Amino acid sequence: MCRGDDPNCAGFEEHRRRFLGELAPERRAFIKSGFLATGGAAALAAGGISLVGPALAQASAKGIRRTAHYHLPATAETVHWGYFSKLLKPQVEIASGDYVTIETLTHHANDDAERMVTGDPGAESVFLWTKEAKGVARRGAGPETSPLGPGGGLGVHICTGPVAIRGAEAGDVLEVRILDVAPRPCANPTFEGRSFGSNAAAWWGYHHKDMITGDRTREVVTIYEVDASGARDWAKAVYNFPWPGVTDPDGVVHPTIDYPGLPVDHTKTKRNFDVLKGVRIPIRPHFGTMGLAPREADMVNSIPPSYTGGNIDNWRIGKGATMYYPVAVPGALFSVGDPHASQGDSELCGTAIECSLTGTFQFVLHKKADLAGTSLEALDFPMIETAEEWVLSGFSYPNYLVDLGPDAQAAIFGKSSIDLAMRDAFRKMRQFLMHAHRLTEDEAISLMSIAVDFGITQVVDGNWGVHAIVKKAIFSDRPS
Amino acid sequence: MCRGDDPNCAGFEEHRRRFLGELAPERRAFIKSGFLATGGAAALAAGGISLVGPALAQASAKGIRRTAHYHLPATAETVHWGYFSKLLKPQVEIASGDYVTIETLTHHANDDAERMVTGDPGAESVFLWTKEAKGVARRGAGPETSPLGPGGGLGVHICTGPVAIRGAEAGDVLEVRILDVAPRPCANPTFEGRSFGSNAAAWWGYHHKDMITGDRTREVVTIYEVDASGARDWAKAVYNFPWPGVTDPDGVVHPTIDYPGLPVDHTKTKRNFDVLKGVRIPIRPHFGTMGLAPREADMVNSIPPSYTGGNIDNWRIGKGATMYYPVAVPGALFSVGDPHASQGDSELCGTAIECSLTGTFQFVLHKKADLAGTSLEALDFPMIETAEEWVLSGFSYPNYLVDLGPDAQAAIFGKSSIDLAMRDAFRKMRQFLMHAHRLTEDEAISLMSIAVDFGITQVVDGNWGVHAIVKKAIFSDRPS
Repeated sequence: MCRGDDPNCAGFEEHRRRFLGELAPERRAFIKSGFLATGGAAALAAGGISLVGPALAQASAKGIRRTAHYHLPATAETVHWGYFSKLLKPQVEIASGDYVTIETLTHHANDDAERMVTGDPGAESVFLWTKEAKGVARRGAGPETSPLGPGGGLGVHICTGPVAIRGAEAGDVLEVRILDVAPRPCANPTFEGRSFGSNAAAWWGYHHKDMITGDRTREVVTIYEVDASGARDWAKAVYNFPWPGVTDPDGVVHPTIDYPGLPVDHTKTKRNFDVLKGVRIPIRPHFGTMGLAPREADMVNSIPPSYTGGNIDNWRIGKGATMYYPVAVPGALFSVGDPHASQGDSELCGTAIECSLTGTFQFVLHKKADLAGTSLEALDFPMIETAEEWVLSGFSYPNYLVDLGPDAQAAIFGKSSIDLAMRDAFRKMRQFLMHAHRLTEDEAISLMSIAVDFGITQVVDGNWGVHAIVKKAIFSDRPS
Repeated sequence: MCRGDDPNCAGFEEHRRRFLGELAPERRAFIKSGFLATGGAAALAAGGISLVGPALAQASAKGIRRTAHYHLPATAETVHWGYFSKLLKPQVEIASGDYVTIETLTHHANDDAERMVTGDPGAESVFLWTKEAKGVARRGAGPETSPLGPGGGLGVHICTGPVAIRGAEAGDVLEVRILDVAPRPCANPTFEGRSFGSNAAAWWGYHHKDMITGDRTREVVTIYEVDASGARDWAKAVYNFPWPGVTDPDGVVHPTIDYPGLPVDHTKTKRNFDVLKGVRIPIRPHFGTMGLAPREADMVNSIPPSYTGGNIDNWRIGKGATMYYPVAVPGALFSVGDPHASQGDSELCGTAIECSLTGTFQFVLHKKADLAGTSLEALDFPMIETAEEWVLSGFSYPNYLVDLGPDAQAAIFGKSSIDLAMRDAFRKMRQFLMHAHRLTEDEAISLMSIAVDFGITQVVDGNWGVHAIVKKAIFSDRPS
């Protein structure tokens, strides 16, 4: 564990620079009330890093408070596979202002274990599955006794965490700053230091049942190589193969991709290396699934995103971005997984380039009592801030666990539409412009028509997504 | 009229530079077959500008063919208001390779005639409307006897044209390069040289029937000032006013905005100048409506976009962009209008910053016989090319005039959804990647999921739109 205020800590200077850089006028205006009310300016003057919490800020002003930097590896002990749960024991408990470097593993690594698992102790412990032993038994929020295996694959993402934030309670807002994101290098000597990812065009993809060539029921996996050195900003395809059907170590036959992570036996695949020759995929490393435990159920399928975030699958949630989540349960319980090297808006075939990543995050807790009159007051949805934009996430059902009743976790997979998600994105952006930027409804609506871009986040996660983007620069000259 | 090959002609060098710049490797690969087959390389070597047509290219190689540059002003005689029609007499007939500078007028200019009509002879001739005289009688594709006036407002855009391209026939493809776009300066001495636009949050907007404050049935017009000098890249609001109800010069009462262009009497409006203070709207000048006459009906409402383009309302159709349209009728019959200073993806409230613009276009005809084996073969939808991207336009109904049967022009306004438009955009992008970039379906589908962005173009034009964007750089290293 290194200290966030230790000048010898790798990353300390970057954290510091970024924080100071954030105090551009528009950002200052946005956070002002909360910032000033909670002693943020004093904290800044005293060299502190955290923004909020009166006690914390006062301590910082006195030079007492020290931020900490934790490291959370991904192992069979530190991940939960396929669900969020308010009942999970935290892997680490931190204070507001602290940093955590978190390893995440793609649940698709077993599509090519040689390139994404072999030689990597953390990945090997998670993917371990023999007749005798299974590193992580439960995969999904389904029943223990599912014929497909414990959890039934009702939820698919390997999530590292949860991280508990001391003092967090329902009604607070958790700010999560993504300070760094890096691909996980391959540990197999054959491919040492290189990084790889998998894209599965699967039965849950938007394209499925609408194919025009060959076997219309096929699923196809494409393995990509992602530059791990940072020297290139693009990925390239290595090979693809039709899903060969898999018999898992427990003897269950999976003719289709019942859930990702099944061990693919490459003696049974037909690999095609003549794929996407000369095509360079721009890299957009980000976390597909990242958020807090919801309050509504003990165990929640990780696939549908909702009001506490989760599987938003927006490629803008990468390095330099900040997330704001409404806290629903004590400690907030933040988990992250579903790392992506790149994804397009819509995630059309059902997956991105699924590629293990390690992120460094700073967590800032905004207490409910400090939010009155600020932009974060009554925030009831996940909000994305990038260097240049505010991005709001609309869903077909903003809180499907409530909106769809007791059967919500099943019903959500049959009820989504982009039209519904657009309606939600419109309403959220209107609320944001009226509340955070103090516009009238007429001003907000005119602005939305001429300067807000609505895009299709994903059409494959049960609860479909539309995002609304407004540029921060629009407000740079606005009187505060 | 100036000659496109005259070095003294303003714009000549820019046209030339742009054309040469276009021959980047990726573009060369894209157009190669058509380019080489039609003598394009010889034309280039000889200093010619046009790409296609064997006769044209041969002439160019001999130094015979001279391109022409026409100017088409916007007046009551050169515009048609609210419809496309294959029966219209061309305003000008040109050859492939020729340039036309075309003035366009926003149909919303009468929202503030003082700022957008007064003193401007072209605009005054178009908007002239007294008890005794009406500059352009028909507004829309509706009946002559509509109680709302001839045309009934079933179609709203003031379109300049049509421009006929000599030799164009159904099955050909027309390439339209947008070389320049400039706002139309105000001619009223009070505001001389400045430019203005109007945004109407109207009954056909997506927000309407979903408002949360005040009179839930209100329509609100906001007047914006747009920098005409090019020194600033943003617009600002001047004032807004609730639609006051208008009695037109023929005595018809319009309590709502039955159609844009009704003369607003500002002695009856309540102007609010305290609007969007300090908010800077990024400028994205473009043409909302631009395309060819369809074959399916004699007179087609200008609001729903379709396979020959029209009211696509994508802000990417601006300076530097190129459009490709399937030709449906002899001469192609290109018209352009609905100029916008800025618009967001979705055009949420029903309009953009509607602002008169003048564009300079080059027209290149690709004959059907030359298209075999090229990327443009069998193109049956409008395609956008920008400096860095290919953008395909999906609609709820790709050709609604056929898809919805004899009653299509009415039915389209009740049947659209983003979900349908997404399906169309997916299919078009797959076709484009498989055909223009020679990918297999599996390659195309993987690429669409990881590197193609789907966005919501508009949800207000009857036939709703979703666009799919792929970056050209992706293919820059692809073997041709």
